[in-house]
Amino acid sequence: MRRIKALKPEQDAFGEMIWACYKGEEVYEVIERDDGYIDAISSKIYFSDYEDWHPIEQKAMQFVEGRVLDVGCGAGRHSLYLQKKGYDVLGIDVSPLVIKVCRLRDLKKAEVMAIEDADFKPDSFDRIIMMGNNFGLFGGFKKARRLLRKFHRMTSEQALIIAVTRDPYKTDNAAHLEYHRLNKMKGRMGGKVKIRNKFRKYVGRWFDYLMVSKEEMKEILKGTGWKTRQFINSANSHYLAIIERL
Amino acid sequence: MRRIKALKPEQDAFGEMIWACYKGEEVYEVIERDDGYIDAISSKIYFSDYEDWHPIEQKAMQFVEGRVLDVGCGAGRHSLYLQKKGYDVLGIDVSPLVIKVCRLRDLKKAEVMAIEDADFKPDSFDRIIMMGNNFGLFGGFKKARRLLRKFHRMTSEQALIIAVTRDPYKTDNAAHLEYHRLNKMKGRMGGKVKIRNKFRKYVGRWFDYLMVSKEEMKEILKGTGWKTRQFINSANSHYLAIIERL
Repeated sequence: MRRIKALKPEQDAFGEMIWACYKGEEVYEVIERDDGYIDAISSKIYFSDYEDWHPIEQKAMQFVEGRVLDVGCGAGRHSLYLQKKGYDVLGIDVSPLVIKVCRLRDLKKAEVMAIEDADFKPDSFDRIIMMGNNFGLFGGFKKARRLLRKFHRMTSEQALIIAVTRDPYKTDNAAHLEYHRLNKMKGRMGGKVKIRNKFRKYVGRWFDYLMVSKEEMKEILKGTGWKTRQFINSANSHYLAIIERL
Repeated sequence: MRRIKALKPEQDAFGEMIWACYKGEEVYEVIERDDGYIDAISSKIYFSDYEDWHPIEQKAMQFVEGRVLDVGCGAGRHSLYLQKKGYDVLGIDVSPLVIKVCRLRDLKKAEVMAIEDADFKPDSFDRIIMMGNNFGLFGGFKKARRLLRKFHRMTSEQALIIAVTRDPYKTDNAAHLEYHRLNKMKGRMGGKVKIRNKFRKYVGRWFDYLMVSKEEMKEILKGTGWKTRQFINSANSHYLAIIERL
């Protein structure tokens, strides 16, 4: 399999932001979309404790059992929580600096690895968690299906994927609605965004991030060996999907 | 005098950010420097009350008397405070949307006006306040001196300029130090930065913002009819300058 090229240090904008936050600096995550749309959020969320998580992420933890793969683990908030609860957790993230931070925070198993490169022996995990909208890391329709089939091979019979996403269509933001429209004209899923992180002088690589409605998620899962068991809604457009292995 | 061209609506990135914050959205100010350096801060500061201000801004208020011009008034936090205290305050800002917000917040006198266009009859103001680093709006050495001479004409005999800036050299940020070095190579003041705001799809105009050491400020003031009376330091690189009219 073609491995994703490692991030060059100057591309690790996300990691530098997490690193600065880890050192106690007040920093913000700046995300640029390929239509020029700029968004920013506080970085503190990446270091938040269970009590301060989004309620659907708190709920997500109730579905955890056994051996866990945390895809796009960031500074390790979910992995560390689960490790403390006694689960066997591996956190993976494409950013070398966030994995450094995970290790400094005493996460025992943390590896620099893109989701595309996640490839493990059959029956390696019982749960795959994709928190913080990380269903998005599936990137697009075809790639999601390819990765889901691989996740099927890597997991145990009763495995679950526990994933958060947001319904991209639940918005009245005109720029977002226009982006969806253009996506569909190009034959893409409406909620597929090409984005990159910027932090100080660091400019991240462009990557695809996919937000889907529930119907779209069901469509993606067809024939991959997975199906949705349950959706748990939130007060906003985010929702939790419990996806079971067939 | 050549008037500064009005901001087009799509250029009012700062105003759109203030407007979103006014409407209760959690937003962040994203600032891009012309070397690609990206910074972001929470927008909440623009709506903060006296209790939450930087201590040197709280101190600054003790020097206020009479008729006040608030240059770069933003969402009006200082102007509104002073208006409530009974002072006659005019807030000016280049952003039409922030002036709209000032008026909605019941600031009686608020005008869309760039600092370069601020031109009033002799003896119009007793105090000119430049909070939130707004000494920076002087933009550069020559422009500062030109504007200071104009401010001299507009003010009363005992007038003060009450200004906050930060000493740009009090940093160990390598990107900033490199920026200073390149500035000096180009014959510019070290702490002169060319920046613009970005917010969602709005991209602000590039503008010059000047940060100065105390020695540099004294040098700028020479021969303009103003001199520093007092500096009040903070725990970080910010300081308050009380500048008196000669």
